[in-house]
Amino acid sequence: MLHSKTLFFLFFFLLIGLSRSSYSKSRQPCKRLVFYFHDIIYNGENFENATATIIGSPSWANKTKLGGWNHFGDLVAFDDPITLDNNLHSTPVGRAQGFYLYDKKDVFTAWLGFSFVFNSTEHKGSLSFVGADPLMNKTRDIPVIGGTGEFLMARGVATLMTDAFEGEVYFRLRVDIKLYECW
Amino acid sequence: MLHSKTLFFLFFFLLIGLSRSSYSKSRQPCKRLVFYFHDIIYNGENFENATATIIGSPSWANKTKLGGWNHFGDLVAFDDPITLDNNLHSTPVGRAQGFYLYDKKDVFTAWLGFSFVFNSTEHKGSLSFVGADPLMNKTRDIPVIGGTGEFLMARGVATLMTDAFEGEVYFRLRVDIKLYECW
Amino acid sequence: MLHSKTLFFLFFFLLIGLSRSSYSKSRQPCKRLVFYFHDIIYNGENFENATATIIGSPSWANKTKLGGWNHFGDLVAFDDPITLDNNLHSTPVGRAQGFYLYDKKDVFTAWLGFSFVFNSTEHKGSLSFVGADPLMNKTRDIPVIGGTGEFLMARGVATLMTDAFEGEVYFRLRVDIKLYECW
Repeated sequence: MLHSKTLFFLFFFLLIGLSRSSYSKSRQPCKRLVFYFHDIIYNGENFENATATIIGSPSWANKTKLGGWNHFGDLVAFDDPITLDNNLHSTPVGRAQGFYLYDKKDVFTAWLGFSFVFNSTEHKGSLSFVGADPLMNKTRDIPVIGGTGEFLMARGVATLMTDAFEGEVYFRLRVDIKLYECW
Repeated sequence: MLHSKTLFFLFFFLLIGLSRSSYSKSRQPCKRLVFYFHDIIYNGENFENATATIIGSPSWANKTKLGGWNHFGDLVAFDDPITLDNNLHSTPVGRAQGFYLYDKKDVFTAWLGFSFVFNSTEHKGSLSFVGADPLMNKTRDIPVIGGTGEFLMARGVATLMTDAFEGEVYFRLRVDIKLYECW
Repeated sequence: MLHSKTLFFLFFFLLIGLSRSSYSKSRQPCKRLVFYFHDIIYNGENFENATATIIGSPSWANKTKLGGWNHFGDLVAFDDPITLDNNLHSTPVGRAQGFYLYDKKDVFTAWLGFSFVFNSTEHKGSLSFVGADPLMNKTRDIPVIGGTGEFLMARGVATLMTDAFEGEVYFRLRVDIKLYECW
């Protein structure tokens, strides 16, 4: 009898625990992935190699050169190769596709909407990322908001780090993806 | 006593099971919906009928005609009627609103950010979609990342299929929505 | 023995309940926050004060004045101060960064992609918002699709209300955020 009562109370409290903190149990990533992607912006002369181009700009700027005021208002479309290491010439495992938007007058910062589209033997599917990217910070977190294929229903966060930055033509980002919801 | 112990262990293992695989139980869609939407791009002459217009483009293109290089860099804003069947003239059940962005030089592909805004007797609320749309594939999956009203907290995936494509002025998409998280 | 059996059945049904309706238990927000943000659009003369600028527009419009047809096709990048009350001059607790897009010819409506980036003693982290904003409604709901830092893995909904609207240069939004998934 005593055991039954004990069990009953144990049960009761566990139930409360479950309903309250269903997330606390999965704070370890269910999947972790690290990639690099490489962005070469069109500057009027490098069309062959360019993977990105300015497609919107404020009235005071143009579309072959990132504008003044920390590029405020410049909108860039991109289709960048994703690699496993930091070498631009490594075989891509997918493409990073979407846009970035410089969105602040007095500090260098951006807002991103893009997807990783994988098409390798290792990964099939896509992940979507949406959020702010305060570029002046060494590392920046951006939400991973969904996915398809292998990454169906995925959610988590990606830590971005600028791994290289050459003038205003090339940059390379390191992306450390931590998924906390996986199927 | 034996029963109590058995119960206890059963309990323990079930608990572990619950915390580990909370998703595995809901792999059937909790809601499934099929719609069509219809996009008529402004080409300089069809303002009355147009539901979409180019609003951003790279330096080599303009805003009354989708550009070369697979429309790379063309950004289009749209407010398209949603219908239950594939007839453009059926009574709309809502509007598909947002943008698409052609984002690749050498292949025809797009990146989408849009919402379905319903206002019919059957559906009140909205669903938001964000992700890559590799147009050359017969069917493409895009994450459903959230919703409002009837679709509050919804998540899932939508399978897009180009149901019609007439020159560079009209296209129709079939959207097969599978929600795996519903309230 | 009777108790054990009773327990067992209780257990069984609770388990079914848990797996079926894991959401129904959390329909109360786990976090609720109210903020205001302030948008001053660049009009060719107010660069110093401007927090937003037109960066895309259809072929019939320009980038220093919101266009005709309910601004259809105007794309605006912004970096707006977030305050705790409705006073533009209160100390900001963060910045609202992203874009809005007017997306309908015959009604005044928008589509939004933006983040709240907090940097105050009270909040560190960001929240991302994506969805339709039918501006003519007194209140409009928009999905909260993710977050970082303090808001890692957050999801929910925000109710927007236009709190002030002065010509086509300044507006203020009240944002009532209800998170239903928190860590």
